[in-house]
Amino acid sequence: MAARMSTRPEKVNLADKFGRFSEYWKQKIVAEVNDFYVKIAKLKGSFEWHRHNEEDEFFLVVKGRLTIRLRDRDIALNEGELFVVPRGTEHLPVAPEEAWVLVLESKTAVNTGDRGGARTAAPEWI
Amino acid sequence: MAARMSTRPEKVNLADKFGRFSEYWKQKIVAEVNDFYVKIAKLKGSFEWHRHNEEDEFFLVVKGRLTIRLRDRDIALNEGELFVVPRGTEHLPVAPEEAWVLVLESKTAVNTGDRGGARTAAPEWI
Repeated sequence: MAARMSTRPEKVNLADKFGRFSEYWKQKIVAEVNDFYVKIAKLKGSFEWHRHNEEDEFFLVVKGRLTIRLRDRDIALNEGELFVVPRGTEHLPVAPEEAWVLVLESKTAVNTGDRGGARTAAPEWI
Repeated sequence: MAARMSTRPEKVNLADKFGRFSEYWKQKIVAEVNDFYVKIAKLKGSFEWHRHNEEDEFFLVVKGRLTIRLRDRDIALNEGELFVVPRGTEHLPVAPEEAWVLVLESKTAVNTGDRGGARTAAPEWI
């Protein structure tokens, strides 16, 4: 599990944090709240179909647009809109253009869920 | 504990939800993520000094400004800034003008923490 950068909590400016990285689909931890991480990510293109069997996953679009494809419908999110993918639900995030998102999920969650594979990556503090 | 409004998850538009109420200091639940509630609130004026012994509390300012006073310093938050009050830490939220915030904390948290009193209120789904 990623080590916390500092023990003295400070405020986080989202625009500042988003300005510190450019890779897509790499979650960065900006805060922890009990057993949850608050993470940010830049998304572009498609991820991979996957599910988290134990963890719900919260997405809030901070900038741009994100579609979360489910097997039976698409959830189209604009800036200021959020959606929680229930645990056990297969989903595919798709962002035609660059999108900035805030992600909230249990510290135990793995980005690729049950799928694993080359795009599996642990989140890091930023 | 507040009952969930619907079992089929839908997206949430924050501006729409904020437009549905006007009371200050009344947390409204907009989503649940495992054992956490995602809540919104409109704040104006001062709340009361309190602490949550078991729950960290996450504040993200969506609109306006919020100062979270701690016993040893003030955390001044502008739009797009967030702070997590660690469990066990006394704090006093103060908003000179109306502020809109996203709050994230465990479902077990009580708004007035260990203090209790007249301003204690359970969050409701909106």
